[in-house]
Amino acid sequence: MREYAFSVLVENEFGVLSRIANLFSSRGYNISSLAVGETENPSISRMIISVLGEPKVIEQIKKQLNRLINTIKVVDLSEYDTVERELALIKISSNTKTRADIFQIAEVFRAKVVDISITTLTVEVTGVTAKIEAIIELLRQFGIKEIVRTGRIAITRGA
Amino acid sequence: MREYAFSVLVENEFGVLSRIANLFSSRGYNISSLAVGETENPSISRMIISVLGEPKVIEQIKKQLNRLINTIKVVDLSEYDTVERELALIKISSNTKTRADIFQIAEVFRAKVVDISITTLTVEVTGVTAKIEAIIELLRQFGIKEIVRTGRIAITRGA
Repeated sequence: MREYAFSVLVENEFGVLSRIANLFSSRGYNISSLAVGETENPSISRMIISVLGEPKVIEQIKKQLNRLINTIKVVDLSEYDTVERELALIKISSNTKTRADIFQIAEVFRAKVVDISITTLTVEVTGVTAKIEAIIELLRQFGIKEIVRTGRIAITRGA
Repeated sequence: MREYAFSVLVENEFGVLSRIANLFSSRGYNISSLAVGETENPSISRMIISVLGEPKVIEQIKKQLNRLINTIKVVDLSEYDTVERELALIKISSNTKTRADIFQIAEVFRAKVVDISITTLTVEVTGVTAKIEAIIELLRQFGIKEIVRTGRIAITRGA
């Protein structure tokens, strides 16, 4: 088993997402992260799908993805050198005593404080998955109220 | 028709994503943006689903979402004051003549240049959807090679 990431370009028709999700779930595979966003063309979306799987099964899924009518292009990102990023919003318990410590951690990770209340602080952080996990680990001591993550996206390096 | 955003907390079981996608597609609704990420508990994921729909149909979908076995919690974010963010990676054609202009635009939008080649430049930008769309519009003049977007995530403000 290893981690795969697919970039799948699809026509924005209803039912596409469920057909793609079904391809994975019918084999007992769980998509660990999924990000679906618009592209330069509003009728086309790009999905970045991360999944843990066996090479043989993944090869079959790749073929089936290519065969779906609304699929325009499938790229196995694990075959390329890529820039990977993820975005997270993290809400932490905070008070007058801990606030300065949280700001300091945010600064080290170049995270931005995007909301503040008397008892909470929300930070926005961008980076590779390992960086997101490192800041979460550090913030855990203050009490994490909520984490919202986009899932990993990736783009190939160079031209 | 108006824009809705749901935050759905689900158990990380295979098949959950396709069941949720089916709920929308069986009514002819197209999810415009979807971000699925891990939470503080690795066996639980949070999905942020954006969809354009009629209040009546959305109300039914919300009820059905709540009834799915693997659903833990459904929050209609459109009822709350939230912090919204999206992340995009944008690859643009560039040469020695246009590079400085692109760097300048990136600076104004607090976007980071994350990759460079002789003929391309890749920037990372974070913000509300309108900001992402504004930088894409400005970069269009140089020739956009690829856009990868995470889809919108959101977290409620305050405690």
